[in-house]
Amino acid sequence: MEPQLDTTIALLARTPGALNALLRDLPETWTLRNEGENTWTVRDVVAHLAQLERSDWMPRLRRILESGETRPFDPIDRKASVRHAQGKRLEELLDEFARLRGENLEQLRTFQLQPADFARRGRHPALGAVTLSDLLATWAAHDMTHLHQIARIMAHQYRDAVGPWNKFLGVLQCSGHSAPA
Amino acid sequence: MEPQLDTTIALLARTPGALNALLRDLPETWTLRNEGENTWTVRDVVAHLAQLERSDWMPRLRRILESGETRPFDPIDRKASVRHAQGKRLEELLDEFARLRGENLEQLRTFQLQPADFARRGRHPALGAVTLSDLLATWAAHDMTHLHQIARIMAHQYRDAVGPWNKFLGVLQCSGHSAPA
Repeated sequence: MEPQLDTTIALLARTPGALNALLRDLPETWTLRNEGENTWTVRDVVAHLAQLERSDWMPRLRRILESGETRPFDPIDRKASVRHAQGKRLEELLDEFARLRGENLEQLRTFQLQPADFARRGRHPALGAVTLSDLLATWAAHDMTHLHQIARIMAHQYRDAVGPWNKFLGVLQCSGHSAPA
Repeated sequence: MEPQLDTTIALLARTPGALNALLRDLPETWTLRNEGENTWTVRDVVAHLAQLERSDWMPRLRRILESGETRPFDPIDRKASVRHAQGKRLEELLDEFARLRGENLEQLRTFQLQPADFARRGRHPALGAVTLSDLLATWAAHDMTHLHQIARIMAHQYRDAVGPWNKFLGVLQCSGHSAPA
């Protein structure tokens, strides 16, 4: 096991609890408003995180272990999280994310990855060759990209309310840096 | 009470628990590394949040109620959080932040602010006239500015580890937008 795996899992294991502590039963001002046309609400972000637990991280990891570079990853279905989340409250999505993340980390442990496994390669449909180690690190960094986004979406709701302080608050200067995953 | 106060307090009340769930006992890779020379670690950010609970938000709110614009706010002592945090572990700082935030929200409730109070003005040493309403909104948005920063600092530690995915992760394109508070 490469030393970094413990570090990665430690963070992956905490994200659902952190989002739960931050978001559960918060007023809708914070969770159901977006940053303008064609942008996400906090609820949309949590739906996306749950969806990737279902359809991406572990399937891609298994694809590397089973097929290496011969069979590229399936592209991310950007609309799947919208379909799955339809009619669900934020609190249900938080529960779903926590449950799926827990199951995935449990399964990851059963793989008992060996040092040589981390260098095994897969093929990303847009990025080309990536290693299993890249994938695991990206899983954790992706949590942070969306925590960063959640903080920005929430701050946006008070953009006017903070008055003259808006120029001092770094998060209000962030224009967003979103991209595919 | 203006409707927004409940919304503000709901968020202010959750931030300490969210940071605790995210950060307590995390490997030091995540909490004690910064983004380069003269930048903060996650521990430094939590120390700063605790310090502002001690020296800024409530003292400024009281200053508005007691002196209006006649006596400007004291400037923020940027080194105070370094002094107070010296020798303290992240976990102690998380506890301190949670305790001080809880006490401050308790005290805020005892003020029983009336609708007219939210328009009362104080004087910021750099920004000039600000209202009590601006100050309360900034308190909450400031939590989000630092949550945004924490996510960015943490993601930075995996900047290389994610390999080719680095260009897809929005948080890694964020150059930071920090400024005084």
